[in-house]
Amino acid sequence: MADGVGAPGAFPRTAAVVGLGLIGGSLALRLRACGVAVVGIDTDPATLAVARARGAADVVADELAAAAGADLVIVAVPLDQIVPVARAAARYLRDGAVLTDVGSVKAPIVAALGRGLPAGVQFVGGHPMAGSERRGIAAADPTLLDGRPFVLTPAAGTAPAAVEALRGLIARLGMRPVLLDPVQHDELVAQVSHLPYLVSLALARAAADDARAIAGPAYADMTRIAHSPAALWEGVCRQNRAAILRALTRFEAELARLRRGLEEDTVDAVLPVDEEAPARP
Amino acid sequence: MADGVGAPGAFPRTAAVVGLGLIGGSLALRLRACGVAVVGIDTDPATLAVARARGAADVVADELAAAAGADLVIVAVPLDQIVPVARAAARYLRDGAVLTDVGSVKAPIVAALGRGLPAGVQFVGGHPMAGSERRGIAAADPTLLDGRPFVLTPAAGTAPAAVEALRGLIARLGMRPVLLDPVQHDELVAQVSHLPYLVSLALARAAADDARAIAGPAYADMTRIAHSPAALWEGVCRQNRAAILRALTRFEAELARLRRGLEEDTVDAVLPVDEEAPARP
Repeated sequence: MADGVGAPGAFPRTAAVVGLGLIGGSLALRLRACGVAVVGIDTDPATLAVARARGAADVVADELAAAAGADLVIVAVPLDQIVPVARAAARYLRDGAVLTDVGSVKAPIVAALGRGLPAGVQFVGGHPMAGSERRGIAAADPTLLDGRPFVLTPAAGTAPAAVEALRGLIARLGMRPVLLDPVQHDELVAQVSHLPYLVSLALARAAADDARAIAGPAYADMTRIAHSPAALWEGVCRQNRAAILRALTRFEAELARLRRGLEEDTVDAVLPVDEEAPARP
Repeated sequence: MADGVGAPGAFPRTAAVVGLGLIGGSLALRLRACGVAVVGIDTDPATLAVARARGAADVVADELAAAAGADLVIVAVPLDQIVPVARAAARYLRDGAVLTDVGSVKAPIVAALGRGLPAGVQFVGGHPMAGSERRGIAAADPTLLDGRPFVLTPAAGTAPAAVEALRGLIARLGMRPVLLDPVQHDELVAQVSHLPYLVSLALARAAADDARAIAGPAYADMTRIAHSPAALWEGVCRQNRAAILRALTRFEAELARLRRGLEEDTVDAVLPVDEEAPARP
């Protein structure tokens, strides 16, 4: 952590974004809009072509070696690939470079990357709380990031200067930096992201076709995330299994209380009084 | 059903909207935009003032007697008040007038209004599948209606001409008429409206405050309806209790399958394969 992080606003001069999907692509577009030179790296030639056409990168490449000159590398690949890709990218980086990711589960990634990286490379776990049910560079949209939390999960040994540099960058991107312990992050995100996906899926599956045909906007809102790519959620469910099960248990208890209110015809006692409506996110 | 329903497009000349809340107000605004004269009726003076200021009615009144000249009356009051208000309004109507409502539960209303109305007045149960978590005339917005289903639930004895007149009007309002049996309507709406409200509420209650603080847009989408006025849902839960419990049982079964997938670490077997993603509404 020395020459990579200079005066506020000077970091990074060059960022490599590895994985130009919805989130990587959106970050790349916003980084460039903030004056950061972006190297866009993806193994898919079609993705690179779209990234080039959309102006998401100054340079595109299909090999991690292209990250060599960057002082920031953002690993935005599917969850299960983050650790191996981050390790492989780190080998190319010079002293002082900062490595982060966008994975939705942090404890296993932070633990795995807490060892085995080159001594001069700092990893800080990251999770931008943005997205949509769409995927891929074609759906990338930097306004998805506007005002959203970007969680950072430094470990005990993380250099404070790397964390500060990322906090400053996140604010420049128009996002809200939030520092959390990785385990706490995973517990909270299970409640507001991973469980909601499973609930959305169950809700979509529980409705008959002719019910969906007359559904209103609330149903569309509640089942939108069920249509996001299941492949991305498989890794999340495996890697954050225990926290998701705890969140599910909390949810089931709330739902059981509502069921009892219906069964016992005391629904007035289990619905919110208007003043006690649940807090908005 | 004679002079009230003339040539297509001629019905209604005058519509009375009773209850100028979110839905009543939105319908009133759209009716006027379609060239229908609107009598806006509400017991709340502040609501009438806003309705007048927003141009939601040609005439506003605080008494049902003002509906006397209308050839269509839309009862858009909270569910528990629909039957008494419809009965009271019907007394003022002339032969050939059509009466409908916007209640979210249809079987009890259709049964109750199937008897005791003046012989010349036709009641056809209605349910526009539109809305938002907001309420009141200030939030009324005719674009909420655009392309939305408007369910009609005629009974065995309903005059076909009244149903046809309403179908034509619904299409002119930019909505999609859907005919359903009242009991079937209640079963389907339990799955895509009433159950989703309860699920949204349980999800909002199950998250810790610091989890909500970092929540992304999917969580906001899924908990939006939890913030709609609980008072409106109490009647819905009481009047459609059995169907909501059946929908809840379907949902719990889907959720239990996802829980088992997590517990047994076979989540790949319970998540959708991308080709089998649940149908969109």
